[in-house]
Amino acid sequence: MKNINEGIESLAGIKSNLFGKDFLLTWEKSDNDLRTILGVAEVLREMRKQNISPRVFDSGLAISNFRDNSTRTRFSFASACNLLGLAVQDLDEEKSQIAHGETVRETANMISFLSDFIGIRDDIFLGEGNKYMREVGAALDEGFENGVLPVRPGIVNLQCDMDHPTQSMADLMHLKDIYGSIESLRGKKIVMSWAYSPSYGKPLSVPQGIIALMSRFGMQIELAYPEGYDLIPGIVEIAEKNALESGGSLTISHSMEEAMKDADIVYPKSWAPFHIMLLRTQLLKDGDKSGLKDLEQLCLSNNAKFTEWEYNEARMKLTKNGSALYMHCLPADISGVSCKKGEVSAPAFEKSRIQTYREAGFKPYVIAAMMFANKFENPAEALSKIMERDRRRFSF
Amino acid sequence: MKNINEGIESLAGIKSNLFGKDFLLTWEKSDNDLRTILGVAEVLREMRKQNISPRVFDSGLAISNFRDNSTRTRFSFASACNLLGLAVQDLDEEKSQIAHGETVRETANMISFLSDFIGIRDDIFLGEGNKYMREVGAALDEGFENGVLPVRPGIVNLQCDMDHPTQSMADLMHLKDIYGSIESLRGKKIVMSWAYSPSYGKPLSVPQGIIALMSRFGMQIELAYPEGYDLIPGIVEIAEKNALESGGSLTISHSMEEAMKDADIVYPKSWAPFHIMLLRTQLLKDGDKSGLKDLEQLCLSNNAKFTEWEYNEARMKLTKNGSALYMHCLPADISGVSCKKGEVSAPAFEKSRIQTYREAGFKPYVIAAMMFANKFENPAEALSKIMERDRRRFSF
Amino acid sequence: MKNINEGIESLAGIKSNLFGKDFLLTWEKSDNDLRTILGVAEVLREMRKQNISPRVFDSGLAISNFRDNSTRTRFSFASACNLLGLAVQDLDEEKSQIAHGETVRETANMISFLSDFIGIRDDIFLGEGNKYMREVGAALDEGFENGVLPVRPGIVNLQCDMDHPTQSMADLMHLKDIYGSIESLRGKKIVMSWAYSPSYGKPLSVPQGIIALMSRFGMQIELAYPEGYDLIPGIVEIAEKNALESGGSLTISHSMEEAMKDADIVYPKSWAPFHIMLLRTQLLKDGDKSGLKDLEQLCLSNNAKFTEWEYNEARMKLTKNGSALYMHCLPADISGVSCKKGEVSAPAFEKSRIQTYREAGFKPYVIAAMMFANKFENPAEALSKIMERDRRRFSF
Repeated sequence: MKNINEGIESLAGIKSNLFGKDFLLTWEKSDNDLRTILGVAEVLREMRKQNISPRVFDSGLAISNFRDNSTRTRFSFASACNLLGLAVQDLDEEKSQIAHGETVRETANMISFLSDFIGIRDDIFLGEGNKYMREVGAALDEGFENGVLPVRPGIVNLQCDMDHPTQSMADLMHLKDIYGSIESLRGKKIVMSWAYSPSYGKPLSVPQGIIALMSRFGMQIELAYPEGYDLIPGIVEIAEKNALESGGSLTISHSMEEAMKDADIVYPKSWAPFHIMLLRTQLLKDGDKSGLKDLEQLCLSNNAKFTEWEYNEARMKLTKNGSALYMHCLPADISGVSCKKGEVSAPAFEKSRIQTYREAGFKPYVIAAMMFANKFENPAEALSKIMERDRRRFSF
Repeated sequence: MKNINEGIESLAGIKSNLFGKDFLLTWEKSDNDLRTILGVAEVLREMRKQNISPRVFDSGLAISNFRDNSTRTRFSFASACNLLGLAVQDLDEEKSQIAHGETVRETANMISFLSDFIGIRDDIFLGEGNKYMREVGAALDEGFENGVLPVRPGIVNLQCDMDHPTQSMADLMHLKDIYGSIESLRGKKIVMSWAYSPSYGKPLSVPQGIIALMSRFGMQIELAYPEGYDLIPGIVEIAEKNALESGGSLTISHSMEEAMKDADIVYPKSWAPFHIMLLRTQLLKDGDKSGLKDLEQLCLSNNAKFTEWEYNEARMKLTKNGSALYMHCLPADISGVSCKKGEVSAPAFEKSRIQTYREAGFKPYVIAAMMFANKFENPAEALSKIMERDRRRFSF
Repeated sequence: MKNINEGIESLAGIKSNLFGKDFLLTWEKSDNDLRTILGVAEVLREMRKQNISPRVFDSGLAISNFRDNSTRTRFSFASACNLLGLAVQDLDEEKSQIAHGETVRETANMISFLSDFIGIRDDIFLGEGNKYMREVGAALDEGFENGVLPVRPGIVNLQCDMDHPTQSMADLMHLKDIYGSIESLRGKKIVMSWAYSPSYGKPLSVPQGIIALMSRFGMQIELAYPEGYDLIPGIVEIAEKNALESGGSLTISHSMEEAMKDADIVYPKSWAPFHIMLLRTQLLKDGDKSGLKDLEQLCLSNNAKFTEWEYNEARMKLTKNGSALYMHCLPADISGVSCKKGEVSAPAFEKSRIQTYREAGFKPYVIAAMMFANKFENPAEALSKIMERDRRRFSF
């Protein structure tokens, strides 16, 4: 997109329901909601490029609550907040008094007196992460309704046990950018494939997020993994239903080789099996360290049976015209680079490396768009006003 | 307060002496100073609610120096700074070169070249925290007088061994909000009571801050604790003197039961005995780890004699109309919630839970007011100018 | 400088080549480049004093990547960024996913989608720090050229294994401030002397930075150290060449006593011997912990032979008029203060203490000037525009 005003105009017709709402799962959002997020993100991205400042907050805080490590998402969140004028304050649960046994609902209020958003990553415990975000949300509702908080801060899911919506939406924006429109995705074959990694316990949220989102646009989705490496069944069902409704399809298969045939897009990425994650969550809750060690050993030795699940040039040749679009949320486990044997061979990754950087680059704007649409009932109008006021991001 | 201009007008008549001064202890401040802080805080809070931006700094840093854990105060300080336009920079003494043996006076200058405020929490060592703040202050004076620093940054005490002025002032603002005016506090009975906690070594600064501040407004203060759990004698004396001068009273007693009778306001909260804190400070200074362990055991077993000091519904019934206002600086040790047996029973806490969140919500504005009054000789005039310029906190 | 407009005017005539360039080593920069940095820094400093806001970013991030501890430089970088309107986001490599084996070139792009600058400290590994900065730079070039990044963030070297340019330039600004002009430095004798410290492994970058920079202005440089405590030979050669070209001199000697005679300026500071740092780098790379311990012992016992290398009042008496200007990058190892026996005696340090604070106070403005000159092709014009717009840093 080069013409910002055209971008804003095309947004104006879409009726979304994002105002004042948290963004927790893509499958809770309507197609119009998703189109609005993409449209706003594109306009914000273009404004940034053209040195137009979309800053709408003169002051205000955004809280980041990372319960797992993060680089990309941390920086994307910080970038999005900064673009709109918010300062990020980290909730570092180790430096806080939360260890004293404070309840979630209390902490949620204590950090929110002057906050506009809370970004949360909580992807370690299956069945817990998304639940935690909803607990925070309920506490914020209570605080706002009872006059504790001057505004109800919005929550952005920065990855949970179920979904990774800022990632999948950035991926969708990347696809739209490459193919020109959401409509062009119809009929395209995308392979969400398990891939081998020497590490253990990778979250399920990316593959789940991808199949649940991409199934909404008429794509032919193939979900490929070694037997036993299932995702959360309920989310696969959602993807199946989406595929049915959108005129696409969802196939599950167990050979990377077979899956890659004629693929337009491939997304080879490791994850832990659903039943292992369930066990792990229980052991973590029980604080059973030796049990966790045993499970890790079991899991790694099981993984080791599938080192053949590496995306490489031979497999790339099987894809459409031998040049499917390779996607990854990064960092990828690259054989011979970041590990001995991993998700992708070095030459295969190198071919698409810059492409994956571009893919990652959409995330700050997706997050900013989620925040923007939470705050402005009519995002198109707000963006128009920003164009009118004509404020530079960088100037004297 | 709904009408900001009335709030500003009522401030205009009060002559305070806060300009360019640190805020270290409430008992160093005049009544007019305290009224100014409250008045400015109320105006700032209302501005925030009405989307008026009181930002007065286009750039500038505020340093936070937390030598003990914090959530509420950390976020309150960050919120206050952000509201006025300052970016917070943490002085993390572990990541710094301070371990190399740097002197306080050097560090104080090194972090202040472009700083407007330093917020300090140092509540672990009895006899040290407040002293440290004054050392920092003296170093800043020296730096400013010698042309090292372009401005003399103000210091805000975010809790020391003696006082916790941002807490007690937020508590006072809460009382003013509930009872309508400072004058209405006259004659009210407030019970600052020790309460049982399974943890050890809680600072004395909250109870000390409460009795020293609330005694200035004609309240009937009852300080209740098990024998031996004394506060710093010199601060109790200050509270006694204040009570005498303000036409109130200060009684010390040793039964929670008795103390609660007919109370308007109760503040049940654990603390460590003064003489234990003295011992602990010495052992910490000596690095005597086994001594510290022994002391902790002794102290915990001593505490365990007083598990009956729990605020619960039976005790609530003894208070005025069975419904005294319950206060706490949070997080409270809630029996059956954050610990087996603690300061307050779950049902008693639940009745006032939202109230305590509101109480905490005044802190960011109290801190902002302390900074505001340090920077503007005539705060009422500055607030008027802010109203005139009519800048939105959130807008396009 | 009092008159900002005169400062800007004198800048206008200097043709520099800093626009869009990283600042990694002073010896890669022309004299005009250095004069531009100093001139811009002086104007920015005076603007700050006169409450004129030089903020040029409405939003934007600056990344700090500290691979070693820092207080002064961390706060100086934060101050500089804040002055220009950028928010600092720390890249904390422990909290990130970089441990997963991510490549430098990937991380460099991931943190830069909305960044304008990256400040890097990497001074631990000889032969690595500066190289790392160039790797980051090459990755940013690649990202920018391939449309991954909307702008190419500038890199500021916040200390590497070779140079500490923000320190040496702040030191130069301090000398200019004291002697009135760069021209007045001609003929002055400056002694960069090794000094004893009980600590081990101090970087070489400060002495190297000082001799390589100060040799460009016709000064008589004496580099004094115990035999064996050499600096990186290639950098000493650069300083020798500079001295020759500028009409100054560079002498190497091995007696602090002798060196101090008739000195105008003295810079007594500890560092580790070049060959020890080489060994240490290899052992660190090999993860050879016992080898590192042995080396540390060897090094400390070797250091202990030179406790006489302390700058004290007796040595001060040998300097010109017994009152040479004492310089230090801080924190100094002060005998009887921060250690038993160190680089400088307490009375000698005390005489110049405030002076060293002032010296440190130039660093934020030097960093801000490096960023400013990277962003504006014509810094003088940009500063003029800032004067015209007349925006206050602090106001209602």
